[in-house]
Amino acid sequence: MGGDLAPVMVVEGAALAESRFSHVDFLFFGDEKRLAPLVNAHPRLSLISTIHHSADVVTNDDKPSVALRSRRHSSMRLAIDAVKDKEADAVVSAGNTGALMAISKVVLKTLEGIDRPAIASSFPTMRGSTCMLDLGANVQCTAENLVQFAVMGEVFARTVMGVEKPTIGLLNIGVEELKGHYEVREAEAILRASNLPIEFYGFIEGNDISAGTVDVVVTDGFSGNIAIKTMEGSVRFFADFMRNALTSSIFSRIGAILARGAIARMRDRLDPRYHNGAILMGLNGIVVKSHGGTDALGFEHAIGVAVGMIENEFFAKMSQDFERLQADHAHTATVTVT
Amino acid sequence: MGGDLAPVMVVEGAALAESRFSHVDFLFFGDEKRLAPLVNAHPRLSLISTIHHSADVVTNDDKPSVALRSRRHSSMRLAIDAVKDKEADAVVSAGNTGALMAISKVVLKTLEGIDRPAIASSFPTMRGSTCMLDLGANVQCTAENLVQFAVMGEVFARTVMGVEKPTIGLLNIGVEELKGHYEVREAEAILRASNLPIEFYGFIEGNDISAGTVDVVVTDGFSGNIAIKTMEGSVRFFADFMRNALTSSIFSRIGAILARGAIARMRDRLDPRYHNGAILMGLNGIVVKSHGGTDALGFEHAIGVAVGMIENEFFAKMSQDFERLQADHAHTATVTVT
Repeated sequence: MGGDLAPVMVVEGAALAESRFSHVDFLFFGDEKRLAPLVNAHPRLSLISTIHHSADVVTNDDKPSVALRSRRHSSMRLAIDAVKDKEADAVVSAGNTGALMAISKVVLKTLEGIDRPAIASSFPTMRGSTCMLDLGANVQCTAENLVQFAVMGEVFARTVMGVEKPTIGLLNIGVEELKGHYEVREAEAILRASNLPIEFYGFIEGNDISAGTVDVVVTDGFSGNIAIKTMEGSVRFFADFMRNALTSSIFSRIGAILARGAIARMRDRLDPRYHNGAILMGLNGIVVKSHGGTDALGFEHAIGVAVGMIENEFFAKMSQDFERLQADHAHTATVTVT
Repeated sequence: MGGDLAPVMVVEGAALAESRFSHVDFLFFGDEKRLAPLVNAHPRLSLISTIHHSADVVTNDDKPSVALRSRRHSSMRLAIDAVKDKEADAVVSAGNTGALMAISKVVLKTLEGIDRPAIASSFPTMRGSTCMLDLGANVQCTAENLVQFAVMGEVFARTVMGVEKPTIGLLNIGVEELKGHYEVREAEAILRASNLPIEFYGFIEGNDISAGTVDVVVTDGFSGNIAIKTMEGSVRFFADFMRNALTSSIFSRIGAILARGAIARMRDRLDPRYHNGAILMGLNGIVVKSHGGTDALGFEHAIGVAVGMIENEFFAKMSQDFERLQADHAHTATVTVT
């Protein structure tokens, strides 16, 4: 029921995903009266779908704590419960991000070795794709949190994005003498000293994000949210600017028509719908957050992110790495003290 | 002597500025043997220039504290001393940012009412131009620092950028229940309650920067540096992407030729050289930092920023506003407590 165009775009997105991933079943949580006709309009989808009625919904105005306490029968809560009860392998929602995180944390709990979950997403860069976390779940992060994000991001890039040896960068600034605050410097020292089998690149700056300098960008939720939204804004600015430029004269209009194939490919590659689906990472279950303003195509891609995590056994690999991290950490703690 | 192409681009930039601003005199600080022939190659420039020899330079690798203590006869130090001694109205440097800030703080001191200076710069947005501060001088900021940045930014937008009633936004994130950390929420409360004659818009998010939602974006130096560098990276990514797209086929190449006027206008508007010149704001003197990698055209623009601040009596207006801020602040402190 979450998202500006829900529930239509959710069901239509599932219908698109059904033809892409033939081995997926869907559980829809929400108002059965509205969902049933939408699902039944797609005969193949209806064969693999079950509708779980819920009259209550989490709204975008609900505070996370309120949604958690008083929305125990909402569609969002029931969908997350289904993951906890192993009825579903993943939940995909375009609803209230804060509520989704708060309910998921309480219902699913964090994975062994992870103190706080993070929001992660991947996006196009000059060298391909890069994954960044945290994008807003944790306003302030300790060095330990950042180290855990680095490990989670590395597993994601390797198993789901298919990068053989992902490089990890810590987002920082290069102006101040001490180069950033205590937490980011401490995280750098831990990652440098660690014996983890990860390719730690070191500090990167804001311009390295789009350059694709690293495969995984690690940062706190405040800076990460600002960075990803700043990128979104820049892309919109640039696209708007180009549209105006290319319609400014008869020559540029003819030019734009001749170059329309190239322009369309560029637009497609930057289309946020093809990069939709942020992961609430570090939870005992797969939770994917779709952009609230997306359409069916965007929602299909968010479903695809969840499918990718299931198919690539993200969890098994993540658990292995966190066991290693903890074993290693007892060791590096000694190293950094001496 | 600072900057990748210095001292040539500095002198060439001054020569360009000489023809744009006929009432400006230049004091060059650096190696006289290298500077004299460069200056003398421009007869009109040499008439209005004085060369002050200095054998020592602050390098890009110098730590700010080291540059401050042991570079007392460097070209950078002597140039800042000239502002303090009222021999110069402003200093423009493409050298080490951290050193420039550290030396300027000690030599020039901060303005009455300002605890910490900030780095500010303006850049193109969908609605014109926006000014943002701090861009990296202060990794962590108190609410008071942010309020002072808001007042400084407002004066700059009004007097130098020529915006009649500049709007001020505080950069924040919209995900967390509490919407950002303590300092940014406290700064919001102070600005909301204040009687200052400024147009406080409230919180903005990263995508609002390029959208031009406000004329002045206020943030701490960590987030601000990440935001501006992320924007730089996005513009480079987009430009690179467009270049590849427009050379990918014979049709798109012909299209690009027909649209070349429009594309050139777009490139010019986004050309970082035309937005070169960050201000070390809040000091008892005008200090403008040019990008180290710029050329003569970019350096001319940094000089233009300094000239704009002098001509528009930035300091007189800033002092007035800070007196008002302090008077008002005694009042609002009472308001927020009750």
